[in-house]
Amino acid sequence: MKPTLRVGIAGLGTVGTGVVRLLAENAEMIAARAGRAITITAVSARDRTRDRGVRLDHLRWVDDAVALASGGDIDVVVELIGGSEGPAKALAAETIAAGKTLVTANKALLAVHGAALARAAEAAGVSIGYEAAVAGGIPIIKTLREGLAGNRIFRIAGILNGTCNYILTVMREQKRDFADVLADAQALGYAEADPSFDIDGVDAAHKLAILAALAFGRPVDFAAVHVEGIRRISALDISFAEELGYRIKLLGIARETPNGVEVRVHPAMVPKTALLASVEGVFNAVMAEGDFAGTVFLQGRGAGAGPTASAVVADLIDIARGTAIPVWGAAQAQLAHTPSVPIAAHCGAYFLRLMVVDEPGVLADVTAILRDHGISLESMLQHGRKPGEAVPIVLVTHETNEAAIGQAIARIGKIAAVLEEPALIRIEP
Amino acid sequence: MKPTLRVGIAGLGTVGTGVVRLLAENAEMIAARAGRAITITAVSARDRTRDRGVRLDHLRWVDDAVALASGGDIDVVVELIGGSEGPAKALAAETIAAGKTLVTANKALLAVHGAALARAAEAAGVSIGYEAAVAGGIPIIKTLREGLAGNRIFRIAGILNGTCNYILTVMREQKRDFADVLADAQALGYAEADPSFDIDGVDAAHKLAILAALAFGRPVDFAAVHVEGIRRISALDISFAEELGYRIKLLGIARETPNGVEVRVHPAMVPKTALLASVEGVFNAVMAEGDFAGTVFLQGRGAGAGPTASAVVADLIDIARGTAIPVWGAAQAQLAHTPSVPIAAHCGAYFLRLMVVDEPGVLADVTAILRDHGISLESMLQHGRKPGEAVPIVLVTHETNEAAIGQAIARIGKIAAVLEEPALIRIEP
Repeated sequence: MKPTLRVGIAGLGTVGTGVVRLLAENAEMIAARAGRAITITAVSARDRTRDRGVRLDHLRWVDDAVALASGGDIDVVVELIGGSEGPAKALAAETIAAGKTLVTANKALLAVHGAALARAAEAAGVSIGYEAAVAGGIPIIKTLREGLAGNRIFRIAGILNGTCNYILTVMREQKRDFADVLADAQALGYAEADPSFDIDGVDAAHKLAILAALAFGRPVDFAAVHVEGIRRISALDISFAEELGYRIKLLGIARETPNGVEVRVHPAMVPKTALLASVEGVFNAVMAEGDFAGTVFLQGRGAGAGPTASAVVADLIDIARGTAIPVWGAAQAQLAHTPSVPIAAHCGAYFLRLMVVDEPGVLADVTAILRDHGISLESMLQHGRKPGEAVPIVLVTHETNEAAIGQAIARIGKIAAVLEEPALIRIEP
Repeated sequence: MKPTLRVGIAGLGTVGTGVVRLLAENAEMIAARAGRAITITAVSARDRTRDRGVRLDHLRWVDDAVALASGGDIDVVVELIGGSEGPAKALAAETIAAGKTLVTANKALLAVHGAALARAAEAAGVSIGYEAAVAGGIPIIKTLREGLAGNRIFRIAGILNGTCNYILTVMREQKRDFADVLADAQALGYAEADPSFDIDGVDAAHKLAILAALAFGRPVDFAAVHVEGIRRISALDISFAEELGYRIKLLGIARETPNGVEVRVHPAMVPKTALLASVEGVFNAVMAEGDFAGTVFLQGRGAGAGPTASAVVADLIDIARGTAIPVWGAAQAQLAHTPSVPIAAHCGAYFLRLMVVDEPGVLADVTAILRDHGISLESMLQHGRKPGEAVPIVLVTHETNEAAIGQAIARIGKIAAVLEEPALIRIEP
């Protein structure tokens, strides 16, 4: 057997503790599969005294995580600190500079600084493992970077944030509104005290930026991701979606178009019969459409100690086996430079819900505006009549474009009988 | 860039032609990802003159496929001949003996001779790529051998034969009987003229044997797989399944039990809400349950030129990148030797459908026999009354074991009022 692979772990929260536990519990099996033992030699965490339920006393403790990079007893640094800046960024840079392999679960770091990190890694001749950064226990990085490597990918679409999917699932099942369900999710620990990273779509956008880079073989570009969250989704729209044969999901989508790659995170109406529509609760899922493989769909647990530790350890086993793949799937000089296209260039169908005063002529005004902007309707719903009161009207368009619908909505919003800001949700096939 | 990876292809049927086409169409992208060009240098196929729609005239043609193994212009041999014996087996052995890497889509070869081939490959220091042997475009070999390598797997379950799944789907949707739908599937090219490999479960069993070896880290053992096909599934049972909240699927299941690993292919009742129940038509899917990752589910196209070529080329890119994993996920000396348990040891719930003469006392006789064998019932269905005529009775048991239900059925079959051989289908959670 080859010599032990020596691992330093920075960050002993849920995931870090999970990695310690997994490497201990399955040590023998992992050594058999990796061809060598994988052993933690040093750790760094803020609180040295907290009982984490795993044995740590035999490990070297380092107060400054960045010092792990220079540890003479460390071959691989596992960065589980989190955050795109600060010690996580410094540790990643120092690890690569020291010629060591980096494993990280840090989607923010990779989304924001991944292009520079990949250049540094290539220059230093080291690899970066980041299976744990996207979709937890689902091996989607490996699937895109290796399993589908022979394919030109046309489109990937995923449910990448379990908190949002949980909230949307409960809203639908219990016909409750967003704020109410969010408060419950926070009480249950499914959502953070400050939930904005999740519910405003930023977390999903970090993950999508990474997947889009791999799928289209280009450097990661977080700035190009269009991001919308789920704060404005209402129980009313979820119920209309049901009636129209859709589910509302927060999707991350990267799609090839004639002008470049669309990369966007936003709530979307998905046909109930689509695979992604059936993904409920905290689960994550990703579908990838390749020119030869066709559609491949993966579903699993996107977060939590076990699934994320499983992904970290898969990277460690790869490293122990000697597998090394370029960070974005190809050497820097071979990466594509397909441009991203802004959301303004998006073409698709839309769900539009208005609250209007139920009086003659409103629908005529609305449809005239849509006609002016070249938008045709697939269907319209208006239930019940309450003359003089506010009622919802739902319009589903045929394929149109973001500019046309944006201009139409701006005008529709100004009709006196239209009472609230119209709700607009993109429909995904 | 590293020197070109030179490939010899044996077999130019649908899949072989697909590989030629994929390597040509995506050549530039593949070279970028693989870090070197991947080039076919020689081919072998029975008919040299047939127009396959791809350019082949620049390649060296070899009449005897086995000669590819010794080709001085070949680094990797791709075996797409098929069959567990004959030229496929000879070519595989010779390729390994010549110290070359083998890539194969041949599930029969690996299921039957995979243990010996793995020993030979380890001795020769070469690897075997066989992503294409199971579930076509779904990267399930990579997922089990690498992505979930840190996990102890408890159970895998899959829909591994698209022909059977297509037939069962059409039977259910169109309420038609097996023979009728099979004849249609043959006419449409979805089933072979001699369909027994598919519909008797042998093809699925080959694939399951491979997955079970990987999941449980032991040498492949096709002889230990219990195999039943779908010939005896009737439209009547499919309709009862629907009523009871199940779908009937041909599943391949490998499950850890206290006494060893169960490895079995048979029609099973799957709850309609289960992920596998929603896999329809020619699609394949596999779910794996790991101790840390939880349940991971993969779905995609299990056969056809494109998906299978995608898997072959993924293996070639791995090889070009220098990735080499032991055939069964660990070196020979590190493989586990967990025993297999025979189907007779299976515990589970059962669906039992009898055709009985509708006369007083039959149900009392049947339930008395079940009671004698310690089998309790969860539910019973008998629709309509036709005194003196044949009517179906459906019984769903609580968990019992194969021996008990077998003995009970033998006795039930002897009751004079029971007219046909009882239909028995295992229920899977």
